[in-house]
Formats: sequence, structure tokens, C-alpha cells
Amino acid sequence: MKKLKIGVIGVGNMGSYHAKNLYEQKVDGACLYALCDNDEIVAEQLRQDYPDVKVYENYVELLDSGCDAVIIATPHYFHPEIAISAFERGVDVMCEKPTGVYTKQVRLMNQSAEKHGRKFAVMFNQRTSSLFSTAREIVKSGQLGELKRAVWIITNWYRTQSYYDSCSWRGTYQTEGGGVLMNQAPHNLDILQWILGMPKSVYANLDFGRYHNISVEDSADLLLKYENGMSVSFLTSTGEPCGTNRFEIVGSKGKIVLEGGVLKKWISKEDERDYCFSAKELNYQPEFEYSEIAEEGPADAHLAVLQNFVNHILFDEPLVACGHEGINELTLSNAAYCSAWTKSAVSLPLDEDKFYELLKSHSNDKKEAKTSRKNYTNPARWQINW
Amino acid sequence: MKKLKIGVIGVGNMGSYHAKNLYEQKVDGACLYALCDNDEIVAEQLRQDYPDVKVYENYVELLDSGCDAVIIATPHYFHPEIAISAFERGVDVMCEKPTGVYTKQVRLMNQSAEKHGRKFAVMFNQRTSSLFSTAREIVKSGQLGELKRAVWIITNWYRTQSYYDSCSWRGTYQTEGGGVLMNQAPHNLDILQWILGMPKSVYANLDFGRYHNISVEDSADLLLKYENGMSVSFLTSTGEPCGTNRFEIVGSKGKIVLEGGVLKKWISKEDERDYCFSAKELNYQPEFEYSEIAEEGPADAHLAVLQNFVNHILFDEPLVACGHEGINELTLSNAAYCSAWTKSAVSLPLDEDKFYELLKSHSNDKKEAKTSRKNYTNPARWQINW
Repeated sequence: MKKLKIGVIGVGNMGSYHAKNLYEQKVDGACLYALCDNDEIVAEQLRQDYPDVKVYENYVELLDSGCDAVIIATPHYFHPEIAISAFERGVDVMCEKPTGVYTKQVRLMNQSAEKHGRKFAVMFNQRTSSLFSTAREIVKSGQLGELKRAVWIITNWYRTQSYYDSCSWRGTYQTEGGGVLMNQAPHNLDILQWILGMPKSVYANLDFGRYHNISVEDSADLLLKYENGMSVSFLTSTGEPCGTNRFEIVGSKGKIVLEGGVLKKWISKEDERDYCFSAKELNYQPEFEYSEIAEEGPADAHLAVLQNFVNHILFDEPLVACGHEGINELTLSNAAYCSAWTKSAVSLPLDEDKFYELLKSHSNDKKEAKTSRKNYTNPARWQINW
Repeated sequence: MKKLKIGVIGVGNMGSYHAKNLYEQKVDGACLYALCDNDEIVAEQLRQDYPDVKVYENYVELLDSGCDAVIIATPHYFHPEIAISAFERGVDVMCEKPTGVYTKQVRLMNQSAEKHGRKFAVMFNQRTSSLFSTAREIVKSGQLGELKRAVWIITNWYRTQSYYDSCSWRGTYQTEGGGVLMNQAPHNLDILQWILGMPKSVYANLDFGRYHNISVEDSADLLLKYENGMSVSFLTSTGEPCGTNRFEIVGSKGKIVLEGGVLKKWISKEDERDYCFSAKELNYQPEFEYSEIAEEGPADAHLAVLQNFVNHILFDEPLVACGHEGINELTLSNAAYCSAWTKSAVSLPLDEDKFYELLKSHSNDKKEAKTSRKNYTNPARWQINW
């Protein structure tokens, strides 16, 4: 069978990793067909490293070169423009997260994919974690009863100033579109909404350039409220050493805690909504059955999602995350910025025009680009760190 | 040596426990001298149970009966009036938490104690936990470096509807003054400010009567911001089964986590504020030395604090918590109500007059008293549950 010809647009940190996987034939049914980077030094290096692969500096040329599909791994702000150009040329798209910088863009991307009948996937690699999918099944199946609270402390996204200095586009609203919520936490915000659904309101404290010389947020505290009354705290940062990744979900029949690569589960046969009103004991607690489940996700989640994208195109395998899925997590981060900028809770559905106006008004918050881009590959940085 | 003659005013859940401890001579240097409960059925029962102890139905009579000191364990709203009456009569006071319902009251109590030269202590029994005092030492000594974040999930205060029905004064602003923040969480709010100090602003989502048939809050999510930028999340509830008690404090040199009766500590020799700007690695992490410390608090913390109060009067032993200490935790809960009622973050110092006006406007939020008071003693309910 003929292999799917895949191009990679933006060969920085993530792009070079995907290119390498494709080039080394780690993805069944696909091959690395073309590369594009608008940095001529990077492009020149790519020509040396991949002598038998087409290399472009302009993504339109790559799209016109005969690719079946592309992986878009440029700075976030360029995702929508490139994806829509691809769809218009009959090319399928796997887009790095976040899908775009604001939800309006992602709606346009999805409309374009539908109009041109193209495949559109998002690199939400953490969805392949067995713990998250198990947590999702536990919640969806009603084992926890009625949801009451969730708390995700996800502060193990530590970055030094060197990280923000490594690419000149990092650390401003104009070029990166945001900080930890836009770059690191989209994975977690996606998992959060994938498991718990979407809230009705978002309140956020964001700290802009608190730990680093950047104009965007490097620390974020979100308080979400759901239609049924559930409270969700989502706490993240790129400035805390020895970070935590602990996700607790509580319902009327028990709770689960995901931490250290283990899902811990306490489930009771009795529902709190019953014994709250029937028990005579003033602080009655039923028996909870305890169990543990260890992580069994794929060794390389990015590779697994890329394989899924290829299988989707070739064999119609359901996508881990389709283009529409990019909207929800982006709604959460957009709403968080809106809340922090207006210092009040924001109701969903989000007023997307208002958000866009606010975003534009903050786009002039600039930082000085201190160094040029460094190229490096460290896949461990993108794994789930328990 | 003559024993200190102690009276107990309000012989409900806590009062009866203190009375029993005194009567059984578990407190060195003190004896149970008198009891007062304004419920005549309770008073009659006390006369039978404690035939050799004076029993009153009016606290003024008890104060005039020759007591050296009193323990005030009435519903919260009566604490200030009774304490001030005691000070005016030359009687020392140990007051149950919360010291009062609003901070203005507690300032008056402290002024009265000073004016009359009386001793004034607050029953913050959880301060005797070795884990909390160790955590405090770690923070105060600078071992954690500059503080960045704290998260306290303290949701193991579960109560059934029977609890709120057990005393007619529970569950309304008019009679109890608040819900979980006023009754259960004062311990934790006190420990929080004892270890971390006071924030500059408080934002709160409170849920009023979410899980129970009450007019006050049974679930609270607080987001505190400190002068140095530290974010603190404080999450509590009386409506979650299988509750959590997990307190994490993060600084620039490491973190501590208090959970399950153990303090876990990760400390590095390097300070994040240094390597953030000097490290070339984009997500550098230094080595963290890990250690664990187990709880070694007294078996009965209430008894320990009562003994401390007696030792303070007799031998000038420093108090675990003096009357002034009641103000800070109450400032936190008062600010949280203020925030929830006004739907905005509240700056400290608190506008106490504004809070008092808001509190009065919510005092008509009534619930129906469903049953009469049940008397029971279950000391385990007031212990720290890890």
C-alpha cells in the first residue's frame, strides 16, 4: 500500500520530534515527505539532516508540493491560517495544541475542514493516558455518583527563563497568545473538560510575568462552577520547583485521585445524597471500597496520536481528538484571561467578540526578545509527569 | 495548692466534653466549679449528672458564683457578650472557636480583657498538632525559600442533615453566624494564617445550603493572594463523602505536603529564584532531599489546650492561642462572606462596617428548626482527621 505523504510545518521543538518519528518510519502507513521552516538557518540544517526530504521556507510551497497531510507545529498564532490554507488545497491536518489562540479562529478552522471534506485532528497526546481515560469512564458511568468537586494541582510545568528566551515568539500575547494556559496547560484543560464537561462560569487569578521576564501569565488559579453546582479548582504554573500533578474528583458516592502515575479510587455502595437525610449519625460515613489502577498508557503518546491520525485517514479509525475538541479547552483559557483582565467571573458561553477585543488590547504588552531560537529535542518534557 | 475554679457556660457538644474532662480531674491545677446552660432540660440533667457542681441557667449567676475562669461554649453569637461580662467581673476566659461572628466583636473582647487585666484564650486545639507546628517552623525558618503557593483541601468535615437539625441555632446567619467557614473551618483558617500570615485579598465562591437544608454555606472555595504574590487555595465543605485533608505549601526551595498524618518534605539546596535565570536547561530541576515526619501531637488536643490555659493563669505559660488570635481567622471568613455576597475579590484590611451591614442583611435568611437539640459526645469528631 502506498504510504501517506506527510509534511511538517514548523520544525522547532515539537515539529522536529514529529519529523524524526516519521523519518525513522515509526508511524505505520506514513512517511516524511516534506519539511517547512521559515527560519532559513533551520531550513538549511534540515536540508543537511534530511537530504532526501523536500525542505521549504514557505508553507504554501509545501502545501502545493503533493503532501497528503501536514502536521502544524508553528507558533500558535499561525495555526489557523496554515490549517485553512491546507484544507483549501485538499490537505488533511494534524494541529499541535493549542489549536489557535482564540476560539473564533478554531471555529473557522473547523468550518473550512468541513467545507473541503478534510480530516482535522489536534495533538492532545495526554488523552492516550490510561489513567485519564479510566477516570473518564468512572465519571461517565456514574460510579462517583453526582459530581461535587474536582481539584487539579498541575504545577509540574516548570520552565526557566532560558525556555522563554529560546524562541523569540515566546512570552507575549502578540506572538504566543498567552503563557502557561496557552502553552503547557492546554493538555490539562482539555483532559479536564473531556472528563468533567464544560462549566457555566470561570473565575481566574492570573499572574503576568511573576516568575519570568515575560508579559504573559506564568501562574494561574482557576475556579470553575458547573451547572449542577460542582466546584473545580485548576491550579497551574511554570514557576514552581518540585511541582505537583494531582487530580482529585469527588462525587456523592466516592472519589478518585490521580497522582504519581496511579489512580486511587474510593467507592461506596451508598449515595451521600441519600444518607445525608436518612442517617441519624451527625457525621456518618459509609464503607468505601478502595482500589488502585496503575498507568498503562503508550510509551510515546505523541507517536500514538500521530499513528491514530494516520489510521483515521487510512482506515477511518476514530480520532483521539478531532478539530472540534480544540474549542473547549481554548474556551476555558480564553474565559480565564477574560476573567483576570476584567477582575470578575465570566459566564459561558464566552462572549468571543469581547474576548478578542481584550486580547487585542493586551497584544502590545511586549517583552524584549533576548536570544535567538535554540533547537533541541527533549521528548521527556512533553510526557505526562506524574 | 488551691485549684483554679472553672465554670463551663453552654454545655452542649463541646461544653459537655470540657466539663467531663475537668470533672474527671484530667486538668492539673483546675476543677469543675460550675455549669450553665440556658436550656432548663439540659440544666436539670446536669444537676443529676454532676450533683456536687453548681448548675445555673443564667450565665451572669455563674460569673458571680466565685469562678476564677470560664470556658465559653455557647452558640457563637453569644461569645462576645459573655466574655465581656466575665472580664468585667474579673473572670478569665477560654473561648471556643470562632471567637465571635464578626471581627469588630472580637476587638471589643480583647479591649475588655486588657482593660480589666484578664486572661483571654481561644480553643484553637489544632495548633497542638506537631505537623502544623513543624510546618510553621519550616516556613518561618525560610527552609522553603520564598513562598509561592499553598493549597489546602480540607473537605473531611462531613455532616449529615441530622447534624444541622441537632441544635436549633445551627444553619442560619442570625443564630450561627455562618456555615462551614464559621463552625468547622475556623481551625484550618487559623492554622493557615498562623503558618502563612494574612493575605492582601480574598475571593470566595460560597454555596449556601447546597447539600443541606440550611441557609448558610456548606461548601466554600477561597482564593487568597498575598503581598509577595503567593496564591493560596482553601477548599472546604461539609457535604463531601470520603473527604480529603491535604495541605501543600510550595516555596522557591521546595515544598511540604501534610496528608495522612505525615509531613512530606522536599528541599533543595538551590533556590529557584537563582537557577530560573542562571540555568541553561529549559526545565531545570535541582536535586530535592526528601524526608517524612509523622504526627506526634497530644492524644487529646482539647485537653492540651485547656491545660495550657490553666498553666497560663497559674504559671504564666505562653498561650497556644490568645484572644487576639481569634481576629485573623475571623477576618478570613468575614472577607470570604463579603466576597461571595458582593461577587468580587475583597481587599484586606477588611471594611468591618461594610461586612457587618452585609451580615445583618443576610440575617433574615432563615431555616426552619426541625428538631430539638440532641446531646451527644463524640470527641473523635473534633480531632484532626488525616
